[in-house]
Amino acid sequence: MSTVHAWAAPSATEPLVPVTIERRAVGATDVLIAIRYAGICHSDIHTVRGDWGPVTYPQVVGHEIVGEVVEVGPDVTKYAVGDRVGVGCMVNSCRECDNCRAGMENYCLKGNTQTYNAVDRDGTITQGGYSTHVVVDQDFVLRVPESISYEAAAPLLCAGITTYSPLAHWKAAPGKRVAVVGMGGLGHMAVKIAHAMGAEVTVLSQSLSKQDDGFRFGADNYAATSDPETFEKLANHFDIIVNTVSAPIDVQRYLGLLRLDGALVNVGAPPEPLPVQVFSLFRNRLTFAGSSIGSIAETQEMLDFCAEHGIAPEVELIGAEQINDAYERVLSSDVRYRFVIDTATIGAA
Amino acid sequence: MSTVHAWAAPSATEPLVPVTIERRAVGATDVLIAIRYAGICHSDIHTVRGDWGPVTYPQVVGHEIVGEVVEVGPDVTKYAVGDRVGVGCMVNSCRECDNCRAGMENYCLKGNTQTYNAVDRDGTITQGGYSTHVVVDQDFVLRVPESISYEAAAPLLCAGITTYSPLAHWKAAPGKRVAVVGMGGLGHMAVKIAHAMGAEVTVLSQSLSKQDDGFRFGADNYAATSDPETFEKLANHFDIIVNTVSAPIDVQRYLGLLRLDGALVNVGAPPEPLPVQVFSLFRNRLTFAGSSIGSIAETQEMLDFCAEHGIAPEVELIGAEQINDAYERVLSSDVRYRFVIDTATIGAA
Repeated sequence: MSTVHAWAAPSATEPLVPVTIERRAVGATDVLIAIRYAGICHSDIHTVRGDWGPVTYPQVVGHEIVGEVVEVGPDVTKYAVGDRVGVGCMVNSCRECDNCRAGMENYCLKGNTQTYNAVDRDGTITQGGYSTHVVVDQDFVLRVPESISYEAAAPLLCAGITTYSPLAHWKAAPGKRVAVVGMGGLGHMAVKIAHAMGAEVTVLSQSLSKQDDGFRFGADNYAATSDPETFEKLANHFDIIVNTVSAPIDVQRYLGLLRLDGALVNVGAPPEPLPVQVFSLFRNRLTFAGSSIGSIAETQEMLDFCAEHGIAPEVELIGAEQINDAYERVLSSDVRYRFVIDTATIGAA
Repeated sequence: MSTVHAWAAPSATEPLVPVTIERRAVGATDVLIAIRYAGICHSDIHTVRGDWGPVTYPQVVGHEIVGEVVEVGPDVTKYAVGDRVGVGCMVNSCRECDNCRAGMENYCLKGNTQTYNAVDRDGTITQGGYSTHVVVDQDFVLRVPESISYEAAAPLLCAGITTYSPLAHWKAAPGKRVAVVGMGGLGHMAVKIAHAMGAEVTVLSQSLSKQDDGFRFGADNYAATSDPETFEKLANHFDIIVNTVSAPIDVQRYLGLLRLDGALVNVGAPPEPLPVQVFSLFRNRLTFAGSSIGSIAETQEMLDFCAEHGIAPEVELIGAEQINDAYERVLSSDVRYRFVIDTATIGAA
């Protein structure tokens, strides 16, 4: 066991504060990572505020973690001290169910072990990346390619893979038309990745306020969902719509934008159910689907893809003392496009 | 133009009665078919009773039509007098949109021309198969294989293709597990077809009352949806669920039965929207989808598949004067499994 610095939420209603937490001793197949940067995901905020269910406080969130290996267990074969590595949304899974055996740990039938606020294999509660160090089993550690900077790598571990996986699965490619609903942390990665995959990319955003950015990220088209004409002009247009927005959407309107065998794939979700008119799925044999992060193998594939294509998220670096302000800015959509915490500032307070 | 006998609904509230209607003159690419049998589909009832929107009365319904070619237009190349043929749910499409050009007329972007209660290319209202004769463009006529009897062929034109198409598209095959929700006209065809495709087939029916039939049709398993244990025992089990039921279902419960990349495909639909919890689609990367009949090419493929595998629907032959009683029996689910009208009784009254 080791005592490390972190920033934690003491409760659902209080701001995050500096704390110390215990990390488990480095086990046989564990890697000890000195965290360099940790991204701030909207999920972190939902979690600490109790929006998504019970939380064990104090809770350290953060599941976009990058850093350097500083110690390895005796049976570690995949990583060595000094390696540049990352950790995403999960740190373990049952490894026995059909999905785990198929290499799809993100869909572990017993539920994978989330990077924070989950029960770890030793019975402790997992604590995330707003910290100086973390201990993770080598099988849930990713290799960060040399050409991706540490700070740019962080958001790839959640925002990157969450959008890469459905784009790959539903086959974004030349000749395919992709729409990205919402251009925030996830959406801006979806634009860059879909563009690199060769698809025609359209951003569907509430307004045109981020249009210049959208084109800079590789979008071919940018349309405002507040303009009813958008839904007429782009009817029957898309093969894939990646919906990154957590607010409820009018499903039927978006289904109207899909062409034959098109899919409206959700990576964000509101807590309330959405009404789906089944008749609207008969048209064009449409699919309404969901996708949840990606497997470890696919996350590595995504990192390598981003390195190969020079894809990096747009980040705003902050110190730990700015986390609470950053949360407010995320909630008011005032971030372009991902806050990343420089963990050198953690414990320095 | 020719005057032919038929049975029509005079209004939304009156029983069907014998009438005469006009069929257009046989055009250059038209086929005149002497109808032998016409199946009764639940859609016929919804239509004549105005459940699905405005109807032009008197209305002759019926879109499961088989018979013999008795005259062909001068430019007809596909059929000759004496050929055994069928007509399903559509008799034309725009032939110009992306979907039509891709041979997917059933998804015509302008809406294909339905076999009844639709505006035909000459501006008249199409009239369906409860009749002695029909004139149809050769491109929307199917060839009925010799080994399939006329009366057995009729229900294949709607119930057969409506279930064959999603089973083929979502790849029912050996190693795949298919559930069929509801074992009525469509459902019993789905069981036979999925079994012939080599999939493991489970019927999910409200009760076990038709269990013996289910096993006879090729089901490997039969479970009652009224038994809550069904949803526990079969959790994470299926690759494909074909929902043939038009009543609202609890979507989340059925999604719980799907394994990785599973699809809940609807071929029946209630008029009201169904609430879908998007989070429930994240698990196992699930798909909630719809499918609408099949293309002409696929309908021919289905007929040939049924001939090859000796698949025939279970039919109860009736005379035209029994149509109104049959409607009541369909509405009370008292049919095993499809009523088929012997059109020799039409006009004989």
